[in-house]
Amino acid sequence: MNVPNKRKAATEQVSELTTGRLSVYLRCLNQLEADGVETISSQALAERFHLNAAQIRKDLAYFGEFGVRGVGYYVKDLKLHLRKILGLDRSLRVAVLGAGNLGMALADYPGFRREGFEIVAMFDSAEGKIGVESRSGVPIHDIRDLRKVLRRERIDIVVLAVPAESAQHVLDQVAGSGVKAVLNFSPGTLKVPEGIKLKSVDLTVSLESLSFFLAQGDSST
Amino acid sequence: MNVPNKRKAATEQVSELTTGRLSVYLRCLNQLEADGVETISSQALAERFHLNAAQIRKDLAYFGEFGVRGVGYYVKDLKLHLRKILGLDRSLRVAVLGAGNLGMALADYPGFRREGFEIVAMFDSAEGKIGVESRSGVPIHDIRDLRKVLRRERIDIVVLAVPAESAQHVLDQVAGSGVKAVLNFSPGTLKVPEGIKLKSVDLTVSLESLSFFLAQGDSST
Repeated sequence: MNVPNKRKAATEQVSELTTGRLSVYLRCLNQLEADGVETISSQALAERFHLNAAQIRKDLAYFGEFGVRGVGYYVKDLKLHLRKILGLDRSLRVAVLGAGNLGMALADYPGFRREGFEIVAMFDSAEGKIGVESRSGVPIHDIRDLRKVLRRERIDIVVLAVPAESAQHVLDQVAGSGVKAVLNFSPGTLKVPEGIKLKSVDLTVSLESLSFFLAQGDSST
Repeated sequence: MNVPNKRKAATEQVSELTTGRLSVYLRCLNQLEADGVETISSQALAERFHLNAAQIRKDLAYFGEFGVRGVGYYVKDLKLHLRKILGLDRSLRVAVLGAGNLGMALADYPGFRREGFEIVAMFDSAEGKIGVESRSGVPIHDIRDLRKVLRRERIDIVVLAVPAESAQHVLDQVAGSGVKAVLNFSPGTLKVPEGIKLKSVDLTVSLESLSFFLAQGDSST
């Protein structure tokens, strides 16, 4: 249906940067809830987690009025709201492609499960891996059955953790399987098939930002 | 020495966002060089890698005049310049703390080595791991020798890939070892010791931005 919808209008222009910050707020709220904190002001939230209070208010105001004057935010309520905005109010089914060290680490990453991402399948081409399970019990399928299993398991998101040289081929296989979103850990540039949203995590970029920081330090001492 | 220095003045206010983009440009230039491309305009660079041409010009102009009228950028030269700005014109020594699946994946991640990060040591507390090597030959030390080995190996950057429950303890051990920068993959919030720059990679944030994208899609169909 193409019925206009308030939430859609509000979210259409939200940048990836904002969703990144919402994820961080959600992480902080999880921590607060675990600590038994029931309400918190934007100021206290900012101080405790080294964030920017004005930015918090601005980001949250964009999605509605969540704060209560004189109280701040109700931790539980705000958490539910953020989960809904981020589409985490339902379970998302994830498959990890590549059962090397990185794939195994991702399949068993406790943070994914905690936020409602269900890792239901892994894929690899190595004889010795097909048919076995990750430590947390995710079965490893033959990559030749990729499309069939992706469809059967109704996978929402694919995580690409295969070697750079096979990344493009595997990504092309994902197209047409019903999967609309791919999280890519492979370092090269990829041609993204139509109908797929690809988000790349480049681990080197993070290391380079630290390198930049160190280079600055050296020039001042 | 506290001599004012043009480069320092220029780099002081550069946000992490900019260094992230410089890293991405560097990755593109590597690709172009591998393909035998010698010069490229900001427009062509933007088109080929789905970037923003005006942003490229703005980011690069900030560090000096790298473009040549009618030619664009010399790929090799610009690459060297970017490597220098990012502090990659020297080798940086890295240690990975935690030799689980994630630690092993990071120690053997080919992208790190390619950019001049030398992974020289890993650490773990498990009997069966201490004394062995990662697939690419990085030795695994006893975590009890952490400070001693970090100093002896003149480590610049530590990568934290230990379970969440031991992350704070291990991070506190790193303080005072001479290491000034930490790349953290542990999901919890950490109290950062003075004198250390910590950059966290939260893998869940990336998945959540895809979840947000999928939720938007659902509301429009």
